[in-house]
Amino acid sequence: MPLTPPALPQVSRTGNGWTDESDAEPGLRYVDVRSWTEKLCQPLETEDYVIQSTPDCSPVKWHLAHTTWFFETFVLIPYLPGYRPFHPEYCYLFNSYYNAVGPRWPRSQRGLLSRPTVGEVFGYRKYVDEHMTRLLQARRSSPDIAARTVLGLNHEQQHQELMLTDLKHALALNPLRPVYRPSVLDQGQCPNLGWIAVAAGLGWVGHPGKGFAYDNELPRHQVYLQGFALASRLAHNREFLAFIDDGGYDRPALWLSDGWAVRQERAWTAPLYWEKQDGAWLITTLGGRRALNPDEPVCHVSYYEADAFARWSGCRLPTEQELEMAVAGGSLAGHFLEAERYHPAPVVADDDRGPLSQLYGDVWQWTASPYVGYPGYQPAVGALGEYNGKFMCNQFVLRGASCATPRSHARTTYRNFFPPDARWQFTGLRVARD
Amino acid sequence: MPLTPPALPQVSRTGNGWTDESDAEPGLRYVDVRSWTEKLCQPLETEDYVIQSTPDCSPVKWHLAHTTWFFETFVLIPYLPGYRPFHPEYCYLFNSYYNAVGPRWPRSQRGLLSRPTVGEVFGYRKYVDEHMTRLLQARRSSPDIAARTVLGLNHEQQHQELMLTDLKHALALNPLRPVYRPSVLDQGQCPNLGWIAVAAGLGWVGHPGKGFAYDNELPRHQVYLQGFALASRLAHNREFLAFIDDGGYDRPALWLSDGWAVRQERAWTAPLYWEKQDGAWLITTLGGRRALNPDEPVCHVSYYEADAFARWSGCRLPTEQELEMAVAGGSLAGHFLEAERYHPAPVVADDDRGPLSQLYGDVWQWTASPYVGYPGYQPAVGALGEYNGKFMCNQFVLRGASCATPRSHARTTYRNFFPPDARWQFTGLRVARD
Amino acid sequence: MPLTPPALPQVSRTGNGWTDESDAEPGLRYVDVRSWTEKLCQPLETEDYVIQSTPDCSPVKWHLAHTTWFFETFVLIPYLPGYRPFHPEYCYLFNSYYNAVGPRWPRSQRGLLSRPTVGEVFGYRKYVDEHMTRLLQARRSSPDIAARTVLGLNHEQQHQELMLTDLKHALALNPLRPVYRPSVLDQGQCPNLGWIAVAAGLGWVGHPGKGFAYDNELPRHQVYLQGFALASRLAHNREFLAFIDDGGYDRPALWLSDGWAVRQERAWTAPLYWEKQDGAWLITTLGGRRALNPDEPVCHVSYYEADAFARWSGCRLPTEQELEMAVAGGSLAGHFLEAERYHPAPVVADDDRGPLSQLYGDVWQWTASPYVGYPGYQPAVGALGEYNGKFMCNQFVLRGASCATPRSHARTTYRNFFPPDARWQFTGLRVARD
Amino acid sequence: MPLTPPALPQVSRTGNGWTDESDAEPGLRYVDVRSWTEKLCQPLETEDYVIQSTPDCSPVKWHLAHTTWFFETFVLIPYLPGYRPFHPEYCYLFNSYYNAVGPRWPRSQRGLLSRPTVGEVFGYRKYVDEHMTRLLQARRSSPDIAARTVLGLNHEQQHQELMLTDLKHALALNPLRPVYRPSVLDQGQCPNLGWIAVAAGLGWVGHPGKGFAYDNELPRHQVYLQGFALASRLAHNREFLAFIDDGGYDRPALWLSDGWAVRQERAWTAPLYWEKQDGAWLITTLGGRRALNPDEPVCHVSYYEADAFARWSGCRLPTEQELEMAVAGGSLAGHFLEAERYHPAPVVADDDRGPLSQLYGDVWQWTASPYVGYPGYQPAVGALGEYNGKFMCNQFVLRGASCATPRSHARTTYRNFFPPDARWQFTGLRVARD
Repeated sequence: MPLTPPALPQVSRTGNGWTDESDAEPGLRYVDVRSWTEKLCQPLETEDYVIQSTPDCSPVKWHLAHTTWFFETFVLIPYLPGYRPFHPEYCYLFNSYYNAVGPRWPRSQRGLLSRPTVGEVFGYRKYVDEHMTRLLQARRSSPDIAARTVLGLNHEQQHQELMLTDLKHALALNPLRPVYRPSVLDQGQCPNLGWIAVAAGLGWVGHPGKGFAYDNELPRHQVYLQGFALASRLAHNREFLAFIDDGGYDRPALWLSDGWAVRQERAWTAPLYWEKQDGAWLITTLGGRRALNPDEPVCHVSYYEADAFARWSGCRLPTEQELEMAVAGGSLAGHFLEAERYHPAPVVADDDRGPLSQLYGDVWQWTASPYVGYPGYQPAVGALGEYNGKFMCNQFVLRGASCATPRSHARTTYRNFFPPDARWQFTGLRVARD
Repeated sequence: MPLTPPALPQVSRTGNGWTDESDAEPGLRYVDVRSWTEKLCQPLETEDYVIQSTPDCSPVKWHLAHTTWFFETFVLIPYLPGYRPFHPEYCYLFNSYYNAVGPRWPRSQRGLLSRPTVGEVFGYRKYVDEHMTRLLQARRSSPDIAARTVLGLNHEQQHQELMLTDLKHALALNPLRPVYRPSVLDQGQCPNLGWIAVAAGLGWVGHPGKGFAYDNELPRHQVYLQGFALASRLAHNREFLAFIDDGGYDRPALWLSDGWAVRQERAWTAPLYWEKQDGAWLITTLGGRRALNPDEPVCHVSYYEADAFARWSGCRLPTEQELEMAVAGGSLAGHFLEAERYHPAPVVADDDRGPLSQLYGDVWQWTASPYVGYPGYQPAVGALGEYNGKFMCNQFVLRGASCATPRSHARTTYRNFFPPDARWQFTGLRVARD
Repeated sequence: MPLTPPALPQVSRTGNGWTDESDAEPGLRYVDVRSWTEKLCQPLETEDYVIQSTPDCSPVKWHLAHTTWFFETFVLIPYLPGYRPFHPEYCYLFNSYYNAVGPRWPRSQRGLLSRPTVGEVFGYRKYVDEHMTRLLQARRSSPDIAARTVLGLNHEQQHQELMLTDLKHALALNPLRPVYRPSVLDQGQCPNLGWIAVAAGLGWVGHPGKGFAYDNELPRHQVYLQGFALASRLAHNREFLAFIDDGGYDRPALWLSDGWAVRQERAWTAPLYWEKQDGAWLITTLGGRRALNPDEPVCHVSYYEADAFARWSGCRLPTEQELEMAVAGGSLAGHFLEAERYHPAPVVADDDRGPLSQLYGDVWQWTASPYVGYPGYQPAVGALGEYNGKFMCNQFVLRGASCATPRSHARTTYRNFFPPDARWQFTGLRVARD
Repeated sequence: MPLTPPALPQVSRTGNGWTDESDAEPGLRYVDVRSWTEKLCQPLETEDYVIQSTPDCSPVKWHLAHTTWFFETFVLIPYLPGYRPFHPEYCYLFNSYYNAVGPRWPRSQRGLLSRPTVGEVFGYRKYVDEHMTRLLQARRSSPDIAARTVLGLNHEQQHQELMLTDLKHALALNPLRPVYRPSVLDQGQCPNLGWIAVAAGLGWVGHPGKGFAYDNELPRHQVYLQGFALASRLAHNREFLAFIDDGGYDRPALWLSDGWAVRQERAWTAPLYWEKQDGAWLITTLGGRRALNPDEPVCHVSYYEADAFARWSGCRLPTEQELEMAVAGGSLAGHFLEAERYHPAPVVADDDRGPLSQLYGDVWQWTASPYVGYPGYQPAVGALGEYNGKFMCNQFVLRGASCATPRSHARTTYRNFFPPDARWQFTGLRVARD
């Protein structure tokens, strides 16, 4: 599910109760999250909001409106008496995939609409924000409103990341090479790869119940894992270059059958946004095009490429259960959206937080786990039940978070997911072995 | 050839020499034509310039830049010493189909580019206009410059029409039903159909050589025509409704084989922009959606529909030679772009200019003639030779002019052409019979 | 119209009345034509009858049944009292494109049917032949039966040619390189190209009315042609190799816009069935693969290639009117189906029959004429009216005949037609110039 | 991996050593398995061997040759000194997907080849059988030869099933409704659904090591399962009809997102081979078309339909681990290929073998488990390593066996797998719940 991955809060379940501090005041957090979305738009020209570079990507304008529609549809209409929707057609235009809410404008044609204008969409945001503020101030005691508001804020944070990845895709194909924001260029040297061994045994997986979690992180349950070892850091460009130089993209024996077919059809010879010019590798970032830094984590690889790289290196991708158990209790530090770098960073000295580094931020980490429900998984009733469950097929789980993920959106049990051929997210990997 | 139909002036041929008054001063006409293009943009929002609703249509922004690129490439660069192109990438971005000029951005992806911005494109126009003005004032004596400038102005007039038809397509699909300009609604009553008989014999076809003409209107040559009769006016909606009500869209015997396949595949049941609601026919115009007026000429039909309608009515479409001979010497009066109606009008009393009415303006008239070169046709040498000749395959000739054609662009020998499945132009028909 | 090109006899018109000797006894000719079809099958394995290599081609089994269905549907059912169709589903399976006859099995899926078996199809032929023989013996005086029988025989002759071209396509793609029949290899040397000048003036085009003709050859009518010159012989491989060596397939300026797009998309670099191996050109024929003979007429080129070649050589393709007038009264001699060579032959001494040679047989000659109806053209009423008229769009006329055309099927006014990208027929060209 | 699902024997691992009785004499089993393949061909016409109805299906002729190629490539060439391959091109034509063996004829075009003929393919089988017999008699002591022979026999058994399912697909689309073999019609009454509860706890999954197993059944490993309950029998047509009647195919809330998209695109309204006529459901079987028996297990459903049906019934699909643990030690009885029924049967009295019935035979059972490698999974080295591992993506595991599976091919740990949209196998389901 490329556009709006995650899931719904278990508002009716005890123990998943919005009780920590930030959630106790969704009104404060509402302003913060919503204004971050608009802050991300500051460098844009009006024209940049309109275009859609592939069916998987959406116009910025659509993200701005869709996240607003979410609050209107799931909070204001059911809970604010007398609320009048901003425009009768917006539900049709800005519903993403909720069949229970009704028909919708086709996803692949979002870039065909010049109206509403960007100005009108910001007017829509303002209108909904005013009503949300009023509602949150007046009815702060209702747990349903709070729960749905917190869900809407998490939903908006996901779209903050998607706005950046979709925008990157659209700007990168333009021969004029537009820059979103000039880059911060980091120094750093990729440390040697270490191995952290984990012994076989029973353990727990899933959200423990305090603070917000999507429904797909529940129920918490026991699993038995065989012993394994996990790489101490992410795979880096230097290593991926060795894979390329060793013919990695030309040896079908390294690839899954489906992956090889995709690689052939799309003529992949390197990660997305890489190009070779006069013998040197360049990459296009949100800060423009520049030389590839071999010490940065490899990014914009599909599951197929991550899997082939792992096989080539004599390893494999970890399962999501292995990752969750190995990192439990570790630090959530990392390079997130708030750093405003919008590109993964090399490891630097003070990143070194123990044996396992780069656990969050920088790039999402592909796992070997197909995205399915946990044992006993139950989606919510109604339209919000479409948030996560219906995508549990033909996708793979990613763990961690990226340089475009808001810090408050990351957590150990978080399950991101994308189809195995997706490359336009900030996606990388960490290897494991038996 | 959907985007920039016509062709190149025979600048090197005696007798096609830019000698009439308007051409003697291309500088005056330059300002007039160029400012009309910008006048057409006045009702637009920035977002409207960016989108591309189908591969056949182009963004308004692209039309603005491409017509400018034409002057830059074919006039300023070869004839203005020291001229510096506005931007090194614009030749790649705004070349339409001239292989001799070099590679180009794919036509179907013109709507993926947010940059250059609309403001930058207007800056490009200003820059080129200033240099063109300087050149035309300084070197008015050069016949080559004058000829290419006149060609560029005719080219720009074609794009004025395309801007409107492409924009109409993009606005019409938007569920918000945006209006380009509020409509003028005309009254009128469709007169009975009369027949004008033309006897068999030899006649002349092709441009006689005074004033501008595209190369595809040359050479003037003799043809022998069998006797035929031509309808006194265009086919009107009332008649087309009878075709629909008689099952015209469901009877393969009325259709060409290719046409029937297209009708099935695209599920056509009426002309483009028609829809039936609660038993009544509505149409979408540049002035918004309104009830269908049965007294207006039928518009937005493909060649296939025009041909099927003609067969259903016991007639046929005329050939282009029949039309050219029948109308020779007739009045060029009609409803053109300058009327700012942007929709075909019903016949009114003072339209009645003799036995044949509605010869120009309102809608282009499909003919039964595949678009091929006249006997002895020679395209120009070099890139401008790509203007017309290479499209002489799988298209049909249209004659007359439409409500979106500038008045000064219409003439008796003019050959417009589109593929037989094209419907987004202002295209209608007039029947003929043996 | 790839599968069953031509058209219907004007049985109801005086002057087109089956009066010559062969037509006076359709019974004799029936046996002859039908048995030729079966003779062509002698070299085949059962498996060869079943396959369909592209949607344009049909299985041999289908041709055998479809030509039989034609007699059953258009002769036996209407004219033989008490006739019982061989099988109730065969009309659905073996109707090619007659909408008026009813629905039909999709053309592109003819190769998915293992049943009826080849044996059953021959049984079908036998059953219909017996009834046809009975009918023709009993009712020889009915002009309608005779006319439809003659039409059916001409139809079957067209399918004899299609059987061979479709079979060639299917065998040629098989890596085992199956041979239909061992080749006769001819010697010969291509004579120099001469030019035959024709003066401007009025002339007649169309079938004069004695003997069989398809409806698309009528009415005979006057045309005025400008003066032109016609090549004395076909274009040969030696000339086409020079075109290739001169970059003909890599210079868009030589091609129609649509042709260039097709050439790019399908990666054409030579005619169909040509391949270069170790610097030498090989071709695959019905007799197997062998070295290209530069003295043979070029074959298996599309209209686009023929047109580009003609432009490259400073000439053009002739129109069908030019060819018909130039060859009127000339000899019908040539290499036809009955020679059982199944490949165009080099010119040899006794082929030299005056200034214009190779007018018939060897290869069909692409003309510059889009396929449209003659002035006053009227298709027949009813299902047989679908034979020709509905294909008058997006195709080009070919004149002459090929090495796979039965000799009795060729005539001066014959109009074959195919889409401009078709290459699997025996198609070549002759150049002309103004 | 639709065409040749399973996997490779662990010939180099101790404990997986071809030691049981049947394997000790692969020569005897060789004759038995190979002759069963040919026995399945007895009802066929020559034409039936040639056709390919979809890219997923292969011609019978191809199956006959491919299974033979397997022995030639993996046994005779490496182990029989002086062996000469039957034909130099057969390796290109009959390699299915082994990149390490070399290039191959495209899968989707297997139905375009009329040669080799059926007779030649049987000649190929005979030639290889003679050499295999000689090898097996002479070198019975070599464990590698024995292991690869046993693998080849299991491979051939898989293709026996695929021959039947592919043939069924091809015959079923033919309007002549050909019958493979007249049906045996069974009586029986579907018993009420019971539930077998399994408590949470650690258990073992994977092949224990005695007798043949594919590599994907290894290594045997511990898993921790939550408690669950399993249906006592398969889902039956009566239940599936209730799902249909309750709007199951029209309620997106019941479907996975991908599944709903497929259902819409392909317009599914019932399982494959079902059609409603005059209010009654008919099904097409290898025995022809007949009324649907509501007491038969539902068959020819995709994973998407199985999943939607399970959700509709308030249950879910079991995981493969749940199924393997629940059935461990149960009877392998069921309706297999040898019963020559080729259609799932209703439960009859003597089928009732304890609380869990219909565990094997009749239909494969979709599980909720994406097909991935077991912890510690290692594919074999070399070409045979491509047998299973490279398909571990975007497919789902099926357990049990079907009415087209040879009895000796079924076992408790067997992992069949197909993409979630596949319907042409004999696929059904059994529900589970937490």
